[in-house]
Amino acid sequence: MENVKVAIWGFGAMGSGMARMLLKKKGVDIVGVCDLHPERAGRSIYDVLGIERGEKPEVIINPNIDEVLTEKCCDICLCATDSFTKNAFPRLKKVLEKKINVISTAEEMAYPQAQNPEIAAELDKIAKENGVSILGTGINPGLIMDLLVVCLTGCMTDVDHIEAKRVNSLSPFGPAVMEEQGVGMKVDDFNRGVADGSLAGHVGFSESINMIADAIGWKVDKFEQQMAPIVTSVDRKSPFGFAAAGDVAGVNMTGQGYVDGQVKIDMIHPQQIEPEMEGTFTGDYITIKGTPEVNMSIKPEVDGGLGTIAMCVNMIPHVINADPGLKTMIDLPVPRAIMGDFRTFIKR
Amino acid sequence: MENVKVAIWGFGAMGSGMARMLLKKKGVDIVGVCDLHPERAGRSIYDVLGIERGEKPEVIINPNIDEVLTEKCCDICLCATDSFTKNAFPRLKKVLEKKINVISTAEEMAYPQAQNPEIAAELDKIAKENGVSILGTGINPGLIMDLLVVCLTGCMTDVDHIEAKRVNSLSPFGPAVMEEQGVGMKVDDFNRGVADGSLAGHVGFSESINMIADAIGWKVDKFEQQMAPIVTSVDRKSPFGFAAAGDVAGVNMTGQGYVDGQVKIDMIHPQQIEPEMEGTFTGDYITIKGTPEVNMSIKPEVDGGLGTIAMCVNMIPHVINADPGLKTMIDLPVPRAIMGDFRTFIKR
Repeated sequence: MENVKVAIWGFGAMGSGMARMLLKKKGVDIVGVCDLHPERAGRSIYDVLGIERGEKPEVIINPNIDEVLTEKCCDICLCATDSFTKNAFPRLKKVLEKKINVISTAEEMAYPQAQNPEIAAELDKIAKENGVSILGTGINPGLIMDLLVVCLTGCMTDVDHIEAKRVNSLSPFGPAVMEEQGVGMKVDDFNRGVADGSLAGHVGFSESINMIADAIGWKVDKFEQQMAPIVTSVDRKSPFGFAAAGDVAGVNMTGQGYVDGQVKIDMIHPQQIEPEMEGTFTGDYITIKGTPEVNMSIKPEVDGGLGTIAMCVNMIPHVINADPGLKTMIDLPVPRAIMGDFRTFIKR
Repeated sequence: MENVKVAIWGFGAMGSGMARMLLKKKGVDIVGVCDLHPERAGRSIYDVLGIERGEKPEVIINPNIDEVLTEKCCDICLCATDSFTKNAFPRLKKVLEKKINVISTAEEMAYPQAQNPEIAAELDKIAKENGVSILGTGINPGLIMDLLVVCLTGCMTDVDHIEAKRVNSLSPFGPAVMEEQGVGMKVDDFNRGVADGSLAGHVGFSESINMIADAIGWKVDKFEQQMAPIVTSVDRKSPFGFAAAGDVAGVNMTGQGYVDGQVKIDMIHPQQIEPEMEGTFTGDYITIKGTPEVNMSIKPEVDGGLGTIAMCVNMIPHVINADPGLKTMIDLPVPRAIMGDFRTFIKR
């Protein structure tokens, strides 16, 4: 059997991380990479990654996607270009129309039915017409605050209330994340950024809540989310961030899904630099009230960057094996690490 | 759409618990129950369960499976009759040949490929010939020490070593479990029981280890397990068990899966009455070394009885929806609680 052929669109932190992971695996080849960034376009991926090419075929980063992807040139394309479904749509459509399966890192694509049901239906239609499938995934949304919750409800006869809490550190992240999450801002500026929508915070609560609800058969009749500054009382410094005492060290996002007028799904997701400096310890926590109750914790939290990279790469076989159409994490078999030859995971 | 129709074979603690759960759900009917026990056969299930029948159709427990099940008389049969694949096989075959899907509680059926690959292949063939599917599941094997492990590896780029530990209390269980697990025995008698195979202990390590390994692409080249008495230093008393100081309060089972000559999967599963009396606190723990590391705990442990009941009932739609053949938990979408109408979970 031929190796599994993968293309990557977007060679930033996520796309290049996926390449790094794929290069260590058996039975899979990277056959093309598209990226517009002038520092990367035209260069060998091995050069950009700082990895010896060895026996592997050369891959030059090409800014023109139509040169990277021709019809059925590969089994799957990993699209690490966007956070929002609307922005990702034209790119995803282009790949599907070349009869290539897609995995998208766009947070909203983890459950596009939540906020863009028309686009979701359109993607499903295009995928089916072209005989391929498409999935959005990542660590969160994609696993920690949704699929893992769904999986744990599997051992329950009855569910009353769900709380998913992800307390993570922003310290490992770079300048772009510091800016997106408001690290180092004055509280007033932060609040203005929330009001005018320029601060994104975490994208994915609506997707996670709707994924859980649809999976277990609840109907969400209202969704709300809030974004508050985490104000530090001490100076905090991380490799790429600094928050002086009295300023913003991160963002505390909360969200609620209402079912029959009651809050049934609570999401709590504070992200900040150096959380330990004020006694906050990181972790992922799922508390499900019902029969029997389930109280899960993962300490420390699963690393967000590596987790997203792994989820996207590890789902490749499931997406290739799936029936044509738009898939979500609740439609496919459970994710799993791929320690053997990629080809043995593919059902031809 | 008609209600989903379920039959139950075996109306002990598990089978009757599934009936109790199903009676609270929408869009699903129990259409037949088979049980040989003279205290139950011939009686109404509502009478045995101590539940008001209300508007629901009468179901009389029938000791003759051929009267309970006629060809395609229901969508699925829950078989809660056995622990071992070899013993369950003739019963499972009978149900499949009536063109009815099956979920089995037999621990070994959670991954019959592990110890009975020929029977697994035979069941797969029979199921396909009859256009139906068959799954073995439960809380463990089925979720806690295997599927949940697999799911958590999904966020890892690389896995080095897996440890799954389930520390549970036997206090809620009845006299049969006390006997199976050796509670109250003298240490010498316990050791004789291990040697002559009359003490079963936990059934499922081989299944869990092989499920995990096959899921992530490891090849198990050796499997071992051990069974040691948990000797109490104080008198311990539970509703159905008693262990005097110096005697056996439960069983500590350990198992190892070797990959390339190294222990890669460790299973640790001490079960005892009143564990808190000597400072043991119950919980489910998964520790996966690799990138990134994952350290999960569920405290207290997920209730084994309710968990098994829920897993079997909650997997009904996935098994009905599956392609014909033998399925395992790693082939199907993630388990989930069913809080809505059962019919909405079925793809016709």
